[in-house]
Amino acid sequence: MPAFGRFPTSQYLVVQNRHFLIDAGEGVQMQLQRFKIPIHKIDCIFISHLHGDHYLGLMGLLSSMHLQRRVNDLHLYGQPGLDEIILVQFKHSKSVLNYQIHFHAFDPTEPVLIYEDKALTVETIPLRHKLPCAGFLIREKAKPVNLNKNKLIAGMLIQHIAQLKMGADVFDAKGDLLYRNSDFTLLAPPSYSYAFCSDTALNADMVEQIRAVTLLYHEATFMEDEKDKAHETKHSTAKEAAAIAKLCGAEKLIVGHFSARYRELEPLLNEAREIFPNTFLAEEGNTFEIP
Amino acid sequence: MPAFGRFPTSQYLVVQNRHFLIDAGEGVQMQLQRFKIPIHKIDCIFISHLHGDHYLGLMGLLSSMHLQRRVNDLHLYGQPGLDEIILVQFKHSKSVLNYQIHFHAFDPTEPVLIYEDKALTVETIPLRHKLPCAGFLIREKAKPVNLNKNKLIAGMLIQHIAQLKMGADVFDAKGDLLYRNSDFTLLAPPSYSYAFCSDTALNADMVEQIRAVTLLYHEATFMEDEKDKAHETKHSTAKEAAAIAKLCGAEKLIVGHFSARYRELEPLLNEAREIFPNTFLAEEGNTFEIP
Repeated sequence: MPAFGRFPTSQYLVVQNRHFLIDAGEGVQMQLQRFKIPIHKIDCIFISHLHGDHYLGLMGLLSSMHLQRRVNDLHLYGQPGLDEIILVQFKHSKSVLNYQIHFHAFDPTEPVLIYEDKALTVETIPLRHKLPCAGFLIREKAKPVNLNKNKLIAGMLIQHIAQLKMGADVFDAKGDLLYRNSDFTLLAPPSYSYAFCSDTALNADMVEQIRAVTLLYHEATFMEDEKDKAHETKHSTAKEAAAIAKLCGAEKLIVGHFSARYRELEPLLNEAREIFPNTFLAEEGNTFEIP
Repeated sequence: MPAFGRFPTSQYLVVQNRHFLIDAGEGVQMQLQRFKIPIHKIDCIFISHLHGDHYLGLMGLLSSMHLQRRVNDLHLYGQPGLDEIILVQFKHSKSVLNYQIHFHAFDPTEPVLIYEDKALTVETIPLRHKLPCAGFLIREKAKPVNLNKNKLIAGMLIQHIAQLKMGADVFDAKGDLLYRNSDFTLLAPPSYSYAFCSDTALNADMVEQIRAVTLLYHEATFMEDEKDKAHETKHSTAKEAAAIAKLCGAEKLIVGHFSARYRELEPLLNEAREIFPNTFLAEEGNTFEIP
């Protein structure tokens, strides 16, 4: 339940100029507006599962995209059933959108590659919840090396520079090494990753999949003193979220999806930080940047 | 579209201890919370039509009522199709509510009495919109007279006092007038009425039905200089809303449902007030009391 001005789950992720929305809780279009995020930039929407607090803002967002005269295709990734939920509503409102929605259904029970382009991939992460539920692992691919412009030699052929830029050594016609790549390039920038684990009980099975993730979002619905309640409702405590972050070797942890029983969130944060100090709260409008 | 912090349509009406919700735009549960209105008090929800900005907050509200362990029956009044929209979502979230929802479907094309109890009635008001759409006319029934306690005579029989209280004259066994009602009672308090006209083009047909209404809510999506746009989209201008208020002899007018093109609402208010001075804006959290 929403409480104390906190809205249900929704995150906006920008990676290398791609604009993703992950989950779309009720009111997401108002919150995007409030935080000055233009909805026309969003090209892919990922929905973890079919509990209302993760998708009830979707219809309003899709309708507003239409009213804003969107024409670009939209890609929607979700579980089977989400399409029926959308279609039955457009049927009754007699809506004919002026843009195309491509619905990509996935099976949440095992990791699936659901998105890939030249710069990144998105895989599902099977979670343990009352409903079938999947998180998302967004990973940058290895990035191209940067040329070290100080080292380039006057008169080098364009095609040789292009080969260096692609990370290759350059050989002459006889097959002899002409330019060693490492002599002319800087190290490629690191590739970052983000794991979004929306609703889940403690799930050590996913640790291998998200090992060494740069940034981990993990739900922390309860505190450890409500552990029984967490287990019963298939949610995690702040301590459990931190334990997962530690186990998988994440660099940073964000916790969220707090129960309406908590007015103050500092105690949850402190509980997590005891296990994993580099933890932060997912609060309305917070932005986390990976350098 | 929501804009400038304005949420879609939803109104909370309290009449003689009945708690009604009229339309349920996205985010209504958050707004009810923000304005400290406990959702468990709501017993009847009326939905005018199936455009998202009038019902997308319903699912979240119904789910939160469940999470709050509601047990009281809830009565939902709407057009056929609203039930399918709800059921398909509860099917996919595998929800079994711990309270009963009674769905009362109505035909929006003519005035229908959809609710009646001893104190009030609710009728639909056929509106002119792109989708079939109905407003709601909530009317208090005639109220019982109040006894004028200063005028009661010592030794009057209980049953005679009861008859006076019901508004009747009292006769003796021979049929002769014993007590004239008006000698012992004060005038009954007036009965008030409220008409909610959500989405409609100018519709003079409804004037008879809402004649002399105490309080009229009428949409005013546009200003008069966008009249063509209003006609095309089957909405009203502020001037048209005011004209309806004047024609039907309303005591007070509230205008709302403003287009996202208007950041400032004073110009709409002023346009309406030129025709109908007793006009007010439906803004987030505003309360209107009928004395």
